[in-house]
Amino acid sequence: MASGKADRPGEFALIAALFAPLSKNAPGAFGLTDDVAVLAPPPGHELVLKTDAVVEGVHFFRTDPPGDIARKALRVNLSDLAAKGAAPIGYMMALLLPDWPDMAWLRAFVDGLAADQAAFGLSLMGGDTSATPGSLAVSVSAFGYVPAGAMIRRAGAQVGDLVFVSGTVGDAGGGLAVLKENKSVPELIARYRVPEPRLTLGPMLRGLATASLDVSDGLMADLGHIADVSKVRIEVDAAQIPLSKALRTLWGADAAVRAASSGDDYEIAFTAPPWRRADVTNAAARSGVAVAEIGRVVRGEGVVLLDSSGREVAIARSGYTHF
Amino acid sequence: MASGKADRPGEFALIAALFAPLSKNAPGAFGLTDDVAVLAPPPGHELVLKTDAVVEGVHFFRTDPPGDIARKALRVNLSDLAAKGAAPIGYMMALLLPDWPDMAWLRAFVDGLAADQAAFGLSLMGGDTSATPGSLAVSVSAFGYVPAGAMIRRAGAQVGDLVFVSGTVGDAGGGLAVLKENKSVPELIARYRVPEPRLTLGPMLRGLATASLDVSDGLMADLGHIADVSKVRIEVDAAQIPLSKALRTLWGADAAVRAASSGDDYEIAFTAPPWRRADVTNAAARSGVAVAEIGRVVRGEGVVLLDSSGREVAIARSGYTHF
Repeated sequence: MASGKADRPGEFALIAALFAPLSKNAPGAFGLTDDVAVLAPPPGHELVLKTDAVVEGVHFFRTDPPGDIARKALRVNLSDLAAKGAAPIGYMMALLLPDWPDMAWLRAFVDGLAADQAAFGLSLMGGDTSATPGSLAVSVSAFGYVPAGAMIRRAGAQVGDLVFVSGTVGDAGGGLAVLKENKSVPELIARYRVPEPRLTLGPMLRGLATASLDVSDGLMADLGHIADVSKVRIEVDAAQIPLSKALRTLWGADAAVRAASSGDDYEIAFTAPPWRRADVTNAAARSGVAVAEIGRVVRGEGVVLLDSSGREVAIARSGYTHF
Repeated sequence: MASGKADRPGEFALIAALFAPLSKNAPGAFGLTDDVAVLAPPPGHELVLKTDAVVEGVHFFRTDPPGDIARKALRVNLSDLAAKGAAPIGYMMALLLPDWPDMAWLRAFVDGLAADQAAFGLSLMGGDTSATPGSLAVSVSAFGYVPAGAMIRRAGAQVGDLVFVSGTVGDAGGGLAVLKENKSVPELIARYRVPEPRLTLGPMLRGLATASLDVSDGLMADLGHIADVSKVRIEVDAAQIPLSKALRTLWGADAAVRAASSGDDYEIAFTAPPWRRADVTNAAARSGVAVAEIGRVVRGEGVVLLDSSGREVAIARSGYTHF
């Protein structure tokens, strides 16, 4: 049986066979038979744009299931749209392909995209497939709509606000640690491979969150970004950081501190005034996404992790970067 | 002296020092201090979107001037916007960086982007910088505006239309051939390294061209795309293909035929009715971009190159793909 590039058709045939069907619900994509896509936000709305790339050996392993690689490439972008209060509508994809992926790999990759398109209601609108002598990479530009002026910024946290985070923190970091040690904790590995963009929660935070972002560099590092641009200080209570049972089992007493500086969570971290606490609780309930109150915004700068007696906990590094 | 990654700051410092200044004219880019960009087309306009990536060893050489690599990455996208009649406004960029580029390389890369931003009136609106163990790659998503419904499609060529192409054809292919043979023909090498997006001509073709695209795969291959989706046949007169003096010198009597199947021209190929011939001439004059009439649209399918006695000329392959 042919494998790798030998069994792949040329670029145009590949696009027609595999990628064009992913565009069928987007009239402005012209079935990928033109050079560009066309898009117009509905009246009173703006377009929100995000570009993020995932690279073999950096963000995923060559041996990961191809559908998981595809979904991660898409979801790391959707996660940003969610945290900004936007609803996704489409994406462009540049796929840099070495010789080794064969048609079975590519079909599984496309099936992963198709599943997420159906789950999240968006379409492939265009892209580029290029050979590369290097690592496989997937660069996605995702687009969504928000009501004009309603995008939730990083800058906006106010002294006195509470700090919240969705879901559980540190699972992806735990999953990566497990993979590196050739161990198996499926629920943590799944969280590393296929993050969950909080698309039901994000739009509910419009007009409620004063600042918001998705946690990709690590909880403390990303809250540090909010603190920097909002010109405030953020205190996080280590004991309040929401942790999965699997992560507590893996990391024991260190779990909260390690989770706070792990990357790739793709949860939403946000701030909101104390008088909106009930609204946050309601948004969590309606969206089906757990939200935990983990700290507060105070005067000053930077971000600090506190133990149960209010003492600062040293963290090894303030975040994870893929750089 | 430190070189390569050793002399580079971390991702956030790099963005703040080098990339944020490229976004200063785009309010919706938030100075690259947020996670996304926000954009709204002016009333009565649509957004046109294009994604294209360039990869070391495929689209450029590591030893190319870094500013040229940057400009090529941007311009291959701008060229598509031009051919569709759109005016560019911004772009997102995913930069996959191996260890070897040092700060001097990165500064020269950014200077190339800055020069093109000033020349073409657009801004960096966001992006992603990631390490890669593989080849350097630059994936750009470019955005432009067109009046609603005015984008020029590939599908639209009518039997009886004339076929036109801007500038000269084959120079980039000649430049690549020269580079591979370690020879020096600066004007051809420049055309390979830094294509010229025909942004003054493209918008003038709205309402005039019946079909249009930019020539990236090769003149015959790309006219073949128009023929396919327009369900017509296109005849090209080899003797009418516009050639530079440098290319005629390089390739001699074969120049037209070789040029017709060379890639990376980034000229605009389009069709228009014969009664609009004077309007095409006027658009060329007003835009300052030469336009040559090279053939006609007839009944049938496919694309064919004809010699001066109307006989079909065999071409080695119908285009160049980077795949």
